[in-house]
Amino acid sequence: MTTVSNGVNVQALLDAREVLKNAPEAAQFVWRATSKWQHGVHSTSTVKEFYGLGEERAHRTEAVFDADHPEVFAAEDNGITPIEYLLVGLAACLTAGVASVAQNRGIQLRSVEATLEGKHDIRGILGVDPDVRNGFTDIKVTFTIDADASKADIEALVAQSQKRSAVFDALTNPTNVTVEVA
Amino acid sequence: MTTVSNGVNVQALLDAREVLKNAPEAAQFVWRATSKWQHGVHSTSTVKEFYGLGEERAHRTEAVFDADHPEVFAAEDNGITPIEYLLVGLAACLTAGVASVAQNRGIQLRSVEATLEGKHDIRGILGVDPDVRNGFTDIKVTFTIDADASKADIEALVAQSQKRSAVFDALTNPTNVTVEVA
Repeated sequence: MTTVSNGVNVQALLDAREVLKNAPEAAQFVWRATSKWQHGVHSTSTVKEFYGLGEERAHRTEAVFDADHPEVFAAEDNGITPIEYLLVGLAACLTAGVASVAQNRGIQLRSVEATLEGKHDIRGILGVDPDVRNGFTDIKVTFTIDADASKADIEALVAQSQKRSAVFDALTNPTNVTVEVA
Repeated sequence: MTTVSNGVNVQALLDAREVLKNAPEAAQFVWRATSKWQHGVHSTSTVKEFYGLGEERAHRTEAVFDADHPEVFAAEDNGITPIEYLLVGLAACLTAGVASVAQNRGIQLRSVEATLEGKHDIRGILGVDPDVRNGFTDIKVTFTIDADASKADIEALVAQSQKRSAVFDALTNPTNVTVEVA
């Protein structure tokens, strides 16, 4: 048995894996956000409720997020840009994965830091050149990890985190998005 | 000339489009985030600096974001889940687009609200079934817009917003993500 303490309840996750093998409908989650336009390109989004394990659920508190464009885009910079939220999600997802996999493999973590860079050619969104995509050109994530493990074991942790990351998948593979007007 | 006031400086964006036609290197932005693991699957990410129009820049203030897993995942729910950040970014990007396109088309907005639902089969991330993807199954966005415009014009606004949305593209098309250990 491992005696490491990264704070992840891996046993609960392993138990959930067993239970959900025979209950696929319980594994169907729905995550939600609502947003309100404020002024200009400034909007405020809230996240609280979600659905999972067969019933409606909620986070302990409602989270509120402002998004805007920076002053260099002639906006007011009342929050980070929408595309930067994708980097936040990716950083958090891969980091959670590193902690979970380390716990499962008996590796004690001391610190995990990540720096992310998303390259973006804004000629796409401005309509300058139809051959330039609107989103990121590419994203680079660099982890600095201090742990009781070899460099090879740390690299294997990060690789396994990518393999099971919801956000890594959402950014590297296409998702169907439907947009409707009520 | 339009007299609508949605708060978007469309002229500055149209001017930028003209300038960047002849200065593609100035259109190369780099968005950044850094994250630190806290405990369990809780991490804190910060966003402040970015690069664009040929130089280092920064938001007016540093933004800080907590991410965690909910209690139903045997975690502490110190923040929203990483994947929910993608919904926040998508809501904000499409809403900014609606405001910008409305301004450009002379349509006065009174209110713009969006509700987002991202379906997610968590058997993927738990490793229950290798045929289930890790990310969203699909995402649905529903706008409720009050504006001085017909339903058809409002639907056209939303369609054009999708066409120029950085986050819509990032979620519906694949991006190359490189993950390294320093």
